[in-house]
Amino acid sequence: MNDCHELVERAGAALDRLRRRRPLVMCLTNTVVAGWSANGLLALGAVPAMVEEPDEARELAASADAVLVNVGTLTSRQAAAIRAAVAAANAARRPWVLDPVAVDRLTFRRDFVRELLPLRPVLVRGNAREIAFLRERGALTGLAALATDAIDTVFPAEPAAEPAAFANGTPLLASVTGTGCAQGAIAAAFAAVEADPVVTAAAAALTLALAGEDAARRASAPGSFQIALLDALATLTADDLVRKARCA
Amino acid sequence: MNDCHELVERAGAALDRLRRRRPLVMCLTNTVVAGWSANGLLALGAVPAMVEEPDEARELAASADAVLVNVGTLTSRQAAAIRAAVAAANAARRPWVLDPVAVDRLTFRRDFVRELLPLRPVLVRGNAREIAFLRERGALTGLAALATDAIDTVFPAEPAAEPAAFANGTPLLASVTGTGCAQGAIAAAFAAVEADPVVTAAAAALTLALAGEDAARRASAPGSFQIALLDALATLTADDLVRKARCA
Amino acid sequence: MNDCHELVERAGAALDRLRRRRPLVMCLTNTVVAGWSANGLLALGAVPAMVEEPDEARELAASADAVLVNVGTLTSRQAAAIRAAVAAANAARRPWVLDPVAVDRLTFRRDFVRELLPLRPVLVRGNAREIAFLRERGALTGLAALATDAIDTVFPAEPAAEPAAFANGTPLLASVTGTGCAQGAIAAAFAAVEADPVVTAAAAALTLALAGEDAARRASAPGSFQIALLDALATLTADDLVRKARCA
Repeated sequence: MNDCHELVERAGAALDRLRRRRPLVMCLTNTVVAGWSANGLLALGAVPAMVEEPDEARELAASADAVLVNVGTLTSRQAAAIRAAVAAANAARRPWVLDPVAVDRLTFRRDFVRELLPLRPVLVRGNAREIAFLRERGALTGLAALATDAIDTVFPAEPAAEPAAFANGTPLLASVTGTGCAQGAIAAAFAAVEADPVVTAAAAALTLALAGEDAARRASAPGSFQIALLDALATLTADDLVRKARCA
Repeated sequence: MNDCHELVERAGAALDRLRRRRPLVMCLTNTVVAGWSANGLLALGAVPAMVEEPDEARELAASADAVLVNVGTLTSRQAAAIRAAVAAANAARRPWVLDPVAVDRLTFRRDFVRELLPLRPVLVRGNAREIAFLRERGALTGLAALATDAIDTVFPAEPAAEPAAFANGTPLLASVTGTGCAQGAIAAAFAAVEADPVVTAAAAALTLALAGEDAARRASAPGSFQIALLDALATLTADDLVRKARCA
Repeated sequence: MNDCHELVERAGAALDRLRRRRPLVMCLTNTVVAGWSANGLLALGAVPAMVEEPDEARELAASADAVLVNVGTLTSRQAAAIRAAVAAANAARRPWVLDPVAVDRLTFRRDFVRELLPLRPVLVRGNAREIAFLRERGALTGLAALATDAIDTVFPAEPAAEPAAFANGTPLLASVTGTGCAQGAIAAAFAAVEADPVVTAAAAALTLALAGEDAARRASAPGSFQIALLDALATLTADDLVRKARCA
């Protein structure tokens, strides 16, 4: 897809569908941001569900609309729950999104991410450093990816396809813990209502970035920005998304 | 108790006692909402204490004023801590409240809730779907229950007794994760200062619903509502509770 | 150091260094406050990193600028991660701070704190009751400590040295869960940029207390105070710290 404006229109339509369908998003995520991610999903219009026990992860993944896997505080025990959830999601043809937090820095999670990638998440979402680390090693072959930074980049699954890029957002997003992790959860919510991972990634990128811009107009310090960001996720419209997206 | 207004008066008196005595409420709760529940208890005037290791759960339950058990992110390890805490609480005659989160949806926690119910929590608090699931299976025989929904219903322990119901609250409560879980913690705090589980349940229902109504007057989006709700828990008075309760 | 005003000047200089260097602070902390502590560190200008698996704790401790160990929800599994992190931090000569939450109340963590103290944290931070408990048992010999209360007290490592004390703060700090835990994380951030543990302790005490005073001017209830506190951590300057510190 090389027409960024068409992509933005489709992202806006996905936001409307998300609000209508209220997908159930099961999150296997890190303990630091679990509450914040759940509140981000609720504010946007999705329904979060967090479980930790492998048996519950298996059971819920089969009926959830999408699954998020975030390795930010990975443990051996959580790895077992993630394996169970991914197997069940794949068997039930539910989309799952992988957030390889700090994959470039820690060995234990790097080995686990290598194990997960062949199980084919619909999207890999990370910061620019994490996605570059995986791309440089050829680990994302055939997988769509979203790399967030001052400019967010959407890499289609086909290696030859042109990336899309958006110049939205605010530095204040980096002043609150877990905004990237919440974006991974939001991407999973979009994956539940949108089959094209490029549109899913664009919608997740624009949703967080534009809610951030809106919040930054109302708050300039990290505490009040964090609250304004949740408020902005709840009020963001498809029309905002289409009008304010800046294709880069 | 079939006089709802008398019930409301007694709930108001329980709120005054809670503020005076500042009960220590030990919470074995889910990881998503632990921080939010602790802040809810502090705002209301109780003292939260969270532990995870079974040895600590056993030791603390014997000296806490009440215990909350919430199975929202149940694990095998947490089940061991809960068993230890419930046994110690019962031995020391401390009240404990059970929140059977998603008992209607997941097998692992359903089996565990079945194991816990014969150990006699003073109150079972859940949403309407969870409580209906347990009641329809006869699992709550002889146990008081609070079922929250647009109208909150208090079921006395005696099966023949009339339920009480309150038409307070705001849809915004569903836009923040863990408001129901915090209500379970608040119910445990009331159980520490009130022997009658029907009064405990009414006080917990009215406290959250009326704080929610107050917060909804000041905030209309989920981030700012969440903060206004904590503020409202701190300022709610017994008099507010008596004047604003709507017996349904 | 018996000149409190010189101490305050040095604490202010440490705050400037912290903002410039943005130290990476690895936190092994309790699950209730992990998100809040991360946001406190980010607001102040440091970079939080939380891990749970022992292998990751070992790997990250060797490259983090400082480590916080907080036993608020200690488990056997977390104890293993803490042991790995402390050994790696000591081997790499990285400072670590110990917050012995409720050491005076629970046996399991008391035994673990006894095991940790000989491994020489640069600072032990606790509330007045916890620090008194350890001091009365001679457990802090040769270790600097910060005891927080209406008046915060800094005990130098040398038993004969005079403590320093500050009469800053607000009772509202006790209305939010984890403000003390966040202070431990902040103390670790200061330890990364300041070799003298007395200055580290003074800087951590004054930072939280003065941000609290600022927040209390803007908010009087616990929800809005919590948000104003994060905002105040972001805007506090070294000059504020020097001008507003009240040596007691």
